Amino acid sequence: MTQNFATLAEIPTCPRNAEGNPRVFVSASGAYVTDDAGKRWIDFDNTRGSVLLGHGDPEVAEAVGRAATGALGTATGWSPLLDTVTSRLLELCGGEVVGLFRTGTSAVRAAVLAVREAVGAPLVLSSGYHGYDPMWYPAKAPFEPNADGIVDFFFDLDVLAGLLRDGRERVAAVVVSPDHMHLSPRWYERARALLAEAAVPLIVDEVKVGLRYGPGLSTAGLLDADVWVTAKGVANGFPTAAVGGSRTLLKPLREVSYTSFFEPTVLAAAERTLARVATGEPQRTVRETGDLFVEHARSALAAASLPLEVAGNGTFFQFVPATREVKKAFYKATEEEGLLFYRNDNQAVSAAFGPDVLDDARARFSRVCDRLAPFAAAGPVGEEARYQAAWSVMDGLREAERDARETREWVDRFLDD
Amino acid sequence: MTQNFATLAEIPTCPRNAEGNPRVFVSASGAYVTDDAGKRWIDFDNTRGSVLLGHGDPEVAEAVGRAATGALGTATGWSPLLDTVTSRLLELCGGEVVGLFRTGTSAVRAAVLAVREAVGAPLVLSSGYHGYDPMWYPAKAPFEPNADGIVDFFFDLDVLAGLLRDGRERVAAVVVSPDHMHLSPRWYERARALLAEAAVPLIVDEVKVGLRYGPGLSTAGLLDADVWVTAKGVANGFPTAAVGGSRTLLKPLREVSYTSFFEPTVLAAAERTLARVATGEPQRTVRETGDLFVEHARSALAAASLPLEVAGNGTFFQFVPATREVKKAFYKATEEEGLLFYRNDNQAVSAAFGPDVLDDARARFSRVCDRLAPFAAAGPVGEEARYQAAWSVMDGLREAERDARETREWVDRFLDD
Repeated sequence: MTQNFATLAEIPTCPRNAEGNPRVFVSASGAYVTDDAGKRWIDFDNTRGSVLLGHGDPEVAEAVGRAATGALGTATGWSPLLDTVTSRLLELCGGEVVGLFRTGTSAVRAAVLAVREAVGAPLVLSSGYHGYDPMWYPAKAPFEPNADGIVDFFFDLDVLAGLLRDGRERVAAVVVSPDHMHLSPRWYERARALLAEAAVPLIVDEVKVGLRYGPGLSTAGLLDADVWVTAKGVANGFPTAAVGGSRTLLKPLREVSYTSFFEPTVLAAAERTLARVATGEPQRTVRETGDLFVEHARSALAAASLPLEVAGNGTFFQFVPATREVKKAFYKATEEEGLLFYRNDNQAVSAAFGPDVLDDARARFSRVCDRLAPFAAAGPVGEEARYQAAWSVMDGLREAERDARETREWVDRFLDD
Repeated sequence: MTQNFATLAEIPTCPRNAEGNPRVFVSASGAYVTDDAGKRWIDFDNTRGSVLLGHGDPEVAEAVGRAATGALGTATGWSPLLDTVTSRLLELCGGEVVGLFRTGTSAVRAAVLAVREAVGAPLVLSSGYHGYDPMWYPAKAPFEPNADGIVDFFFDLDVLAGLLRDGRERVAAVVVSPDHMHLSPRWYERARALLAEAAVPLIVDEVKVGLRYGPGLSTAGLLDADVWVTAKGVANGFPTAAVGGSRTLLKPLREVSYTSFFEPTVLAAAERTLARVATGEPQRTVRETGDLFVEHARSALAAASLPLEVAGNGTFFQFVPATREVKKAFYKATEEEGLLFYRNDNQAVSAAFGPDVLDDARARFSRVCDRLAPFAAAGPVGEEARYQAAWSVMDGLREAERDARETREWVDRFLDD
């Protein structure tokens, strides 16, 4: 029995039951989590993509347990672990300086405000989700600055081009949370050219993609980031985040530190996780196992003539149901079969998905398709459903041909929701 | 060899050596931390007061180690641990709702912005340190709003009274970080009366005092808080923070949640720590042992006619050196003797300071006094030194008789520093 009636986060981002109350989990191991009724779920949520190695990874758990005894340092001050973690982040993501934070929200806020202060211009052009901070609240009208000087262009590059053309001198930076399910390399190519032409600093907020696409930034080779932020995947679910990049642009953060900056269990988790992330091995496992699952899901959905698409690939994928009714029935069926999906958002397997887990997951998904038989041939997935899915995962517009009027219509529609 | 040249926090808040570089610690146990040269220090910093039970507390370490294996839940979702921790926080600190954050900085920011949004007025009157966020940057002129609508009254109740008299309708709330070394119960009595008369909501930012004065808020019985924030002391140095209080004032936080909200090692550390904090036992040990140390320090300083005072008591105390030269020599001597003090700020022993540690600490402190013999009878501690010490610990003015001109002069002097 949860007491979430007494918590601020009455609507927390976590798995919930049909009544909207959080599901309660009592343990987790590898690819599985167990709820308070003893039901074992296969976890495709993985702490919103943060858990890359699997739950309770033995190597990470051992290091954390040791750090908790004080054997690896102290939160009172600096430790060799801190040097290792910061060096490894610089090797993986590049840049001249790096610093740690405790959440993606605080890291992105710190990075964006620092760059704005360093540049000395009032506006920041933004696309994507950057955390719960009120600085990201919507503006009164689309494409206008909000109270904190943030202008959202919702991943529409025509809008970005217009903003840079008409007010470049007021723009301090662009901040983008990359997506690779609804944006293609062509989108990145054009974005890169626009930013180069305008000579505007770029901050990539890679919190959400969380080192899952490879051992560094997912936008390496696609964009030229001046500053980066990462969090998910850095410490296999332990609370840490990092900002790195240009020393000049990040100079306002020189004196930022906070009490638990040096906390050794988090550093131990990050040290062990990054050592494995750096090899690319867990990401390859995730991609390969994920691809096999996605392939099965697509086949099973097609064989049953069900009106759902699967966007993305094994690294991150997303279900795109044709209608609200299909969506509701789909998540109900997956929950009955013990497939724990991140509702409406990106699904992320962990490197603990071995062959047995894959077999189990495929069998459960086939039974989901059986349950959905009443929706067979209920019609194709349309543009609106695809836009809706993209908006759910990236807080913006999918890449597609459209004119300015259509862009405005899609934005108005989703902001109203 | 630290690589802090590559970190953003080039000037981190942590123990540093004579060259200003962070000292590197390789392990910690109970009241001691060990640096990379093998030297054992007695820790009076205790992670800026966060570590209440002692380093590597066995009960906390065991729970954290177990949680790291996945045996107590998962960061993917809700857990019984989360219910226990939030219930215990409500029991200790009161209020209708409670929510968790990862740092004091993010918790205070969230609380203050929520109350401002709920009240719907633009200004927040503030005293004390509330974290590194730029929203607390100084205003262009003292007692004026900064860019984020924060007006600092620097603990001067005449200034507060004036601000409430002349612009009450524009004030959403008052936020105060309590101090009990430089403010007496009389200060709180007058503050309480002013706030009651103006009927303005009060947020107490108890991050710094960190549950050290007792099993709940240090201002219980002194002020009538509508919203509280706590962090240090909640989880013995593990990264957590909490906001609690009025459901109405905190309503804007209903949807706030972040990925590691459910992280089980931090919850396990908080659960074990709060169970002991709730008994008041560790706080009593800290107070009694701290008092014995402070008594010894005062006697030894007096016997050697040294120009340093000790403010506060065993819970938190602070050295007040007469001059910069004395301060420099004092910290040099304490470092040579392996007494790890939080430079210029509050000293905090942990409940792991047993009789042997106390004997060791007293002997080291006596040797510090021997080293300071050249400063014997170098003059008394004056008002400026006392104001400076208070400013260092509370970012504001100590309680004292003064007129408006003197208040302005002290503020100008310290803001210029």
